[in-house]
Amino acid sequence: MTDGMRFAADELARLATDLLAALGVPADDAATAAAAVVQADLDGVDTHGMGRLPNYLLRLRRGIMNPAPQMAFVRRMGATAVLDADNGMGQVAAARAMREAVRLAGELGIGLVTVRGSGHFGATSYYTGIAIDAGMIGLALSNSPPAMAPHGGRAAFLGTNPIGVGVPVAGGDPIILDMATSAIARGQILKANRNGAPIPPGVAVDEAGATTTDAAAALRGALLPMAGAKGFGLALAVEVLCALLAGAAASPEIPSYFDNFERPSTIGHVMAAINIAAFVEPDAFAARAAGLIDGLHQVPPAIGSAGVRIPGERRSALRRQLLAGGVPLAPAAVAQLTQLAEELGVAPPSPIT
Amino acid sequence: MTDGMRFAADELARLATDLLAALGVPADDAATAAAAVVQADLDGVDTHGMGRLPNYLLRLRRGIMNPAPQMAFVRRMGATAVLDADNGMGQVAAARAMREAVRLAGELGIGLVTVRGSGHFGATSYYTGIAIDAGMIGLALSNSPPAMAPHGGRAAFLGTNPIGVGVPVAGGDPIILDMATSAIARGQILKANRNGAPIPPGVAVDEAGATTTDAAAALRGALLPMAGAKGFGLALAVEVLCALLAGAAASPEIPSYFDNFERPSTIGHVMAAINIAAFVEPDAFAARAAGLIDGLHQVPPAIGSAGVRIPGERRSALRRQLLAGGVPLAPAAVAQLTQLAEELGVAPPSPIT
Repeated sequence: MTDGMRFAADELARLATDLLAALGVPADDAATAAAAVVQADLDGVDTHGMGRLPNYLLRLRRGIMNPAPQMAFVRRMGATAVLDADNGMGQVAAARAMREAVRLAGELGIGLVTVRGSGHFGATSYYTGIAIDAGMIGLALSNSPPAMAPHGGRAAFLGTNPIGVGVPVAGGDPIILDMATSAIARGQILKANRNGAPIPPGVAVDEAGATTTDAAAALRGALLPMAGAKGFGLALAVEVLCALLAGAAASPEIPSYFDNFERPSTIGHVMAAINIAAFVEPDAFAARAAGLIDGLHQVPPAIGSAGVRIPGERRSALRRQLLAGGVPLAPAAVAQLTQLAEELGVAPPSPIT
Repeated sequence: MTDGMRFAADELARLATDLLAALGVPADDAATAAAAVVQADLDGVDTHGMGRLPNYLLRLRRGIMNPAPQMAFVRRMGATAVLDADNGMGQVAAARAMREAVRLAGELGIGLVTVRGSGHFGATSYYTGIAIDAGMIGLALSNSPPAMAPHGGRAAFLGTNPIGVGVPVAGGDPIILDMATSAIARGQILKANRNGAPIPPGVAVDEAGATTTDAAAALRGALLPMAGAKGFGLALAVEVLCALLAGAAASPEIPSYFDNFERPSTIGHVMAAINIAAFVEPDAFAARAAGLIDGLHQVPPAIGSAGVRIPGERRSALRRQLLAGGVPLAPAAVAQLTQLAEELGVAPPSPIT
């Protein structure tokens, strides 16, 4: 938490929707993108929340992100489809792709939809959440600009290529994985750099390839993959699916999210939904999922640990807390959003009083 | 390499086929299982190769693995199917499931086949190789007996739940991921224990939950997941798919591969195939895959590294070398296989002279 003001999630969604609509994003698309952005804040992934919105707005103003794209499914075969996002917002494209994957899975047991010509989609959990809401297992992947050195190399080449998995647990919190394939998320390094804080050892190298705990040096250098060769392998698999299979740009071809406002991102995503009912009785699945989670909670804690935490457990609790008590935003983010609201003629953010 | 004798891969496959057939495995199934076992040796995964065969033979003799199962697809929906393996060999079931996934992907762009009631399938690369041979991307997952502590816990609960991904690269070696979600493969700890060698720090805990470099203590304790919470999350995702979605036993319910010869394994797998031609032109995919690999090879080496190695590169080279020069087997493995051949009335292994 920060010491900033707090805002109702609905008010943040209203603000984000208004700001996007003011730049020509159709109302439905603006609402979708706003929901994805606010959910990142609710999930504690504030690097992909309202603080990131000005970056998207700048892309729309510069004309490198298309506010009103002609998104189209350009190929279809059975349980698969290819969405060309026409350089629209990543949130809009990814949500549309996951909804289509859910529809295909409803008919054919599984749906796999690739996306090309897209932009940064934020946290994966909004998209796997669409599958969870449909009672399905969801998978969300994306490639991203070069940020991470391959295992054995010293320079950034692949992105931090995230993997998201969502599993519905009837009567309980869903299982939600939302992880970069790097040892640390790039957003964490950006945050450390802003705060003048060090980064943990072993997660990044400087420009010369030496490991560093200096955030600024790491940003000029490269992140390292999680678990060495294994994380590199997973990042490469994500790259193959999101770039080569989707027909999108590969990581090395993607312009920086933060330093390049001249070219569209042209990145790729993969969204998959799995229809549980095609495989087992959903009630049996739900009961066994609850039993598996109970069993994990009963494992004796590691030395120095408070015990096993199921992936998604913390974010579900935080979501409830922030929905009830409001989302804290840092003063700098509030000031930037207030100024953008003024420039674009929309109502400024109104905090909880 | 060991200082043992060398055997032609074909001779090892002949021996494995004969031994399995002598215990009632039908000829085709015996040949499939033998091919999977020998490929593990060719790939350098000797913990899952001919040295593991006596374990399978013992299960067949004890009647806890079914030599002539009535495997059947018990559910089908669109691009998905559920194979009940009837406690047959994992290799036979997983290969059949992947062939079905490839067939479904040929019609519907993707195929996803779950397997229940199965056994240890060895290395994932044999199954992703079936997809690669069909020009498709393959995914192979399995759960396994409890061996790994969840992040935050101190006792074994999930298995080392492996993830395999295979990507065809026309004109070059395929990309092959074949990784346990633990920080180290259990087979590596078994090998260290046999050799009286230490294991690396930070990969396992003893019975009391303290980190250990003693292989025997680690075998009584638990492996740790790769990359902490991230590896645990991936292992849990594999568990959800292979146990809950497949309707197979969950890891905590699975008897040990090494200490329990009283109960069938009843584990689950997931096999998926993705038809590249459903998404992009295969020629374009092939050219871009080659370009991506070239780019990775050109990344300057990390300090102290010989440079970037693509997942699968080493095993493809080793496979060529061992196919040409023979597979080395340790003297103890040769002695055990020779004795089994005598007991079961088949020709003993004949080394390259």
